[in-house]
Amino acid sequence: MLFAKTPNPPYYAVIFTSQRTEKDDEGYGKVANLMDELASKQPGFLGVESSRDQDGIGITVSYWNSLESIKLWKDNMPHQKAQEKGKSDWYSKYITRICKVERDYTFSK
Amino acid sequence: MLFAKTPNPPYYAVIFTSQRTEKDDEGYGKVANLMDELASKQPGFLGVESSRDQDGIGITVSYWNSLESIKLWKDNMPHQKAQEKGKSDWYSKYITRICKVERDYTFSK
Repeated sequence: MLFAKTPNPPYYAVIFTSQRTEKDDEGYGKVANLMDELASKQPGFLGVESSRDQDGIGITVSYWNSLESIKLWKDNMPHQKAQEKGKSDWYSKYITRICKVERDYTFSK
Repeated sequence: MLFAKTPNPPYYAVIFTSQRTEKDDEGYGKVANLMDELASKQPGFLGVESSRDQDGIGITVSYWNSLESIKLWKDNMPHQKAQEKGKSDWYSKYITRICKVERDYTFSK
């Protein structure tokens, strides 16, 4: 993963915290990559950051220029299908939080 | 990590995305745990979620009841010292984003 190159605030963030089941690693990986690719072509997409640790706990944060862009992506048909599969197979629990980013700071060597 | 038990929105989130150096794993782990413990005793602290993958990319999201609570924690003296050590030793890059959580959704089996 790279750091998302977001513009000056304000902009929006979707924090997606999830616990993976142990099911279907291959199918999950493929669809996750496909969704990243699709999301990056959506209007208003600014970037994404993602991490998953060895216990299957993951945090993905996607960045958007408006609440409307977030809603369009939520309703996107291939994404809807992936969300259904997420509920039936891939995740035992998740929380999605929609946020407005008010300030940010970068440190870099 | 557990999922943070946050109240109904609005509340605040600090998204901290970081790239670890390969330096000082032991010292880092100790201080990271100590900071989690200290943060959890701060006024306005609501919870924290964290993930770091095998490449050293981590995302930690802490949740707070107000911008004032976030500022108090940022200025906390032991936390200030940890931040200095983070810049000198532990992180090659990080981005901190201060957000207002406007909506959230939970899925659980």
